[in-house]
Amino acid sequence: MSAAGSLSLAPVSQPHVLTIAGSDSGGGAGIQADLKTIAALGGYGSSVITALTAQNTLGVQGVHHVPADFVIKQLDSLFSDDLRPDAIKFGMLAQADTISALAKFFAELGDAKPFLVLDPVMVSTSGHTLLPDSATRALVDELLPLVSLATPNIPEAVVIASSKGEALQQPKTLDDLVALAAALRERTKVPSVLLKGGHLSLPRKDVTATAKARGLSVHWDASGEINEDDGVDVEVISDWLVSEGLAAASPDVIVDILVDAAGTRLFVGTKVESSSTHGTGCTLSAALASSYALETRRNGKAAATISTEAVGQAIEYTQGAIAAAFPLGRGHGPLNHSYLQSQRTIPQPSAHNPTPFISYLIRSCPDMWRQYVRHPFVDQIGKGTLPLPAFKHYIVQDYHYLRHYARAHGLGAYKSTDMESIKAFAEIALHIAAESTMHVAMCEKFGVTPEELHSAPESAASAAYSRFILDIGTQGDVLDLYVAVASCLIGYGEVGLWLQRRLQTGQATLENNPYARWISDYSGGEYIGAVRRGISNLERRIAADPPTPARLARLTGIWQEVVRLERDFWQMGLDQSW
Amino acid sequence: MSAAGSLSLAPVSQPHVLTIAGSDSGGGAGIQADLKTIAALGGYGSSVITALTAQNTLGVQGVHHVPADFVIKQLDSLFSDDLRPDAIKFGMLAQADTISALAKFFAELGDAKPFLVLDPVMVSTSGHTLLPDSATRALVDELLPLVSLATPNIPEAVVIASSKGEALQQPKTLDDLVALAAALRERTKVPSVLLKGGHLSLPRKDVTATAKARGLSVHWDASGEINEDDGVDVEVISDWLVSEGLAAASPDVIVDILVDAAGTRLFVGTKVESSSTHGTGCTLSAALASSYALETRRNGKAAATISTEAVGQAIEYTQGAIAAAFPLGRGHGPLNHSYLQSQRTIPQPSAHNPTPFISYLIRSCPDMWRQYVRHPFVDQIGKGTLPLPAFKHYIVQDYHYLRHYARAHGLGAYKSTDMESIKAFAEIALHIAAESTMHVAMCEKFGVTPEELHSAPESAASAAYSRFILDIGTQGDVLDLYVAVASCLIGYGEVGLWLQRRLQTGQATLENNPYARWISDYSGGEYIGAVRRGISNLERRIAADPPTPARLARLTGIWQEVVRLERDFWQMGLDQSW
Repeated sequence: MSAAGSLSLAPVSQPHVLTIAGSDSGGGAGIQADLKTIAALGGYGSSVITALTAQNTLGVQGVHHVPADFVIKQLDSLFSDDLRPDAIKFGMLAQADTISALAKFFAELGDAKPFLVLDPVMVSTSGHTLLPDSATRALVDELLPLVSLATPNIPEAVVIASSKGEALQQPKTLDDLVALAAALRERTKVPSVLLKGGHLSLPRKDVTATAKARGLSVHWDASGEINEDDGVDVEVISDWLVSEGLAAASPDVIVDILVDAAGTRLFVGTKVESSSTHGTGCTLSAALASSYALETRRNGKAAATISTEAVGQAIEYTQGAIAAAFPLGRGHGPLNHSYLQSQRTIPQPSAHNPTPFISYLIRSCPDMWRQYVRHPFVDQIGKGTLPLPAFKHYIVQDYHYLRHYARAHGLGAYKSTDMESIKAFAEIALHIAAESTMHVAMCEKFGVTPEELHSAPESAASAAYSRFILDIGTQGDVLDLYVAVASCLIGYGEVGLWLQRRLQTGQATLENNPYARWISDYSGGEYIGAVRRGISNLERRIAADPPTPARLARLTGIWQEVVRLERDFWQMGLDQSW
Repeated sequence: MSAAGSLSLAPVSQPHVLTIAGSDSGGGAGIQADLKTIAALGGYGSSVITALTAQNTLGVQGVHHVPADFVIKQLDSLFSDDLRPDAIKFGMLAQADTISALAKFFAELGDAKPFLVLDPVMVSTSGHTLLPDSATRALVDELLPLVSLATPNIPEAVVIASSKGEALQQPKTLDDLVALAAALRERTKVPSVLLKGGHLSLPRKDVTATAKARGLSVHWDASGEINEDDGVDVEVISDWLVSEGLAAASPDVIVDILVDAAGTRLFVGTKVESSSTHGTGCTLSAALASSYALETRRNGKAAATISTEAVGQAIEYTQGAIAAAFPLGRGHGPLNHSYLQSQRTIPQPSAHNPTPFISYLIRSCPDMWRQYVRHPFVDQIGKGTLPLPAFKHYIVQDYHYLRHYARAHGLGAYKSTDMESIKAFAEIALHIAAESTMHVAMCEKFGVTPEELHSAPESAASAAYSRFILDIGTQGDVLDLYVAVASCLIGYGEVGLWLQRRLQTGQATLENNPYARWISDYSGGEYIGAVRRGISNLERRIAADPPTPARLARLTGIWQEVVRLERDFWQMGLDQSW
């Protein structure tokens, strides 16, 4: 437990990824798919729109072109020293003059130009031409030379490469594909080419054999079921699939090929069988720009080329988004872009809410919390009116409780994984031992001998509370235990500070108050220091690994139970009950 | 552990929320903010664009209007029985003819019209008029009567209400605000009005007093620090804030007012001090449409009005997104829309990857896994060539191991929270006891007496493995323990099935093989049935509560360690080492 000050309240920033593309009113492709992808991967997305489409899962019903000068106007707004992106993807650019204007804009940026990913949206999956000839020429001759990474599908690669030299045929084998990717890179001089092989299913065994024979590095897609591609037959998974009535992985695979200065790499995976593939190309290129930008942020510097890992991540994200898609519309539905998103229940601490976890816990049971920390027992302690037998009964039981509470911290030390936490638990155990000594002294003052103290039986309220903490600590992990011990630590601090405030307003007194020592101890610097450290520690742990909704529900349940047991502990003192 | 078949592979669907608004090239407002909000809250977003803006954090540099007929064309694509949304929000509608066309479109839908939220983007935070007069008239007279919920800010509410009757003044008190909201609803007949009070800071104490005096229900915003508004003074949090050098919550609050047929409710919270507020109104109205749609999905039916809870969720999300914003641009920066998003590391099981967790674990250490399940020891068992002393040494140690392995399942029963899991652990403990009996019989056959078996010391490899499992089980929670015991369960199944396959190809034999019984046992129906249930159980637990990245790292570490210890256990047998 380091100093309380080390809980960070600084917001976490995100890299900025811009998409320059068309709008899909249906939300499945274009800038809509791009913005969803960028957000899902952890980036901040902005968009320059080149054309609007009226579109659904069945097709495109209308297109409204945005004038080239307004496309540039949108870009100007971003680049006017305000929202300069870390990476850009180009999608549907629609018209020759738009493409020329964009090429001019980025050429003028010179070395200040961000990492540019171009998805040359020219030929659709079904073979339809999506760009007029003049636009294709502008794309290939003007824009392509400026980009860092191009992501053509097979028909696009054939068109582009053929336009720059001898006409190439549609590839039929892996060797053809590798040759096409290499020719494209050579002829266009684009630093990195990712040739998307989705149009060509290849037998898994042929791919493995060719890759081996040619010494090509192969990255198997980890979004699908594990199989022999991962370097080990998994009989037990195949058996399980059969037992569940599920098909084994297809014998055919899809190969994407990355060629850059470092060589050729194959990204191989089984095809996801799905009709939810609308926007796949948009998603992949947005994911590539995002994973590049995120890697740049992690590394603290921008690389000239995209890494193999970033490409692998983008491909896996896209495959996973197809696999997780739910049916929508009557035609080719959208991907599920948020399939890797889970809801965070406790936000990062911020200046607006620096203790979001403890605030959440207290808000989960405000009435019970108030009954605990504003109990008549502590009110009477503050006024000095609490009957002495009630306090005696309480302090004897609390002495027993403290022994088990100290044991819980021993258990916490056992459950810790780092020496810092072990030390913190051991220190608290020592504090509790000192607190216990104070109890012995107090008891003697109130006429309870150490022998009477030791031999007194435990009341139900005391045993129920201390054993609940120990059981949670044994059953759960160290975080469960932290929450189980927090109500006692924090609640006594709350009582101490509250009584301190009441002293100032005359609602409590230390004069002639037999419990003055008790009040001073729990509002004193040493105890309150421990409370402050406890609060910071708990918030820091939660911020470092925010609980899932299920986990938070369990932690909240533990909190509510220990708050209730604390309240009942005061009541036991007041009633002198067993 | 119920039947293996109950692991669901069905994708989880999302409600569809449409935004009809302008595009903000900077990504912070307009449809960009809306799409980010819808995705963050768990919806599927689509967008009909009414205007493009060239915009950044400093202002709007240009506007390109989309013709009204193309706005309707976009809507037609969605409503042509393909992508009909569950809720719609209207943002910047820009022009009178667009507004009239939209009003006509939705009026013609009649009862088939979805839940409509209107953010009347007419007057900016700074008081600038954003809509021409003709458009304002169309908005108020034609579109407003069709919507389910309107979300004006104070200046907009004054303009709209005044246009429908006696001119109203700018409100100065909570009473004024409540009266304005009520007048607006009465005069426009909009079923629900959410009046956004962001323009008017009010003293916290006045709000509390007025609400009490008028009997208004108050919902305190839980996105900020807990304070006396939550019904309890929290001295301990105030003390902690001071100790951290942080300011206490502002004495002023912001009040949003919801008025509908059920009455008036106040949503009160402290203002987030931030310049990152660009797109706040867009975000709130998109969040309202999303939380309505999500609630509809949860309840299985569409309510006529939005619930208090859904409004509270939308306000808290928006406040939290401002609080979590990081600096971007030189002016009013965007909100952080993904502040509640955390990265899910293991996707939901799908047909593409039905066992994502176990596939992930095995992929995390394929070499070690291969060394374990294809160890020379088991190869020699399959061929019957393993030296008898090696097998004897192994089986004696495995007998010891099984005792602790059974204890680990007893610990699992202790750590379980439901009777079903306790039963499952107890059943496995019984299976292990039976397996152990088989070991005794095997030992006797190989000339090891029960006495020798019991009194044999434990080898280091055996003790290291079994005690590692018990320690993980004691230190962590039940999921840690499930992973710690999984390598033994699943790996022995893998070995059994692999040897079974080798029997078929002649690479293993049962004839004259002294270990035939061992092979049959671990590839037999009873054992493999347990393996299948174990796989389903683990995947189901992970799917129900997907681990955070930190949690997954811990689980992966446990897995890799038990795989290594299993490999070393075979090696210990082969080497007859201690």
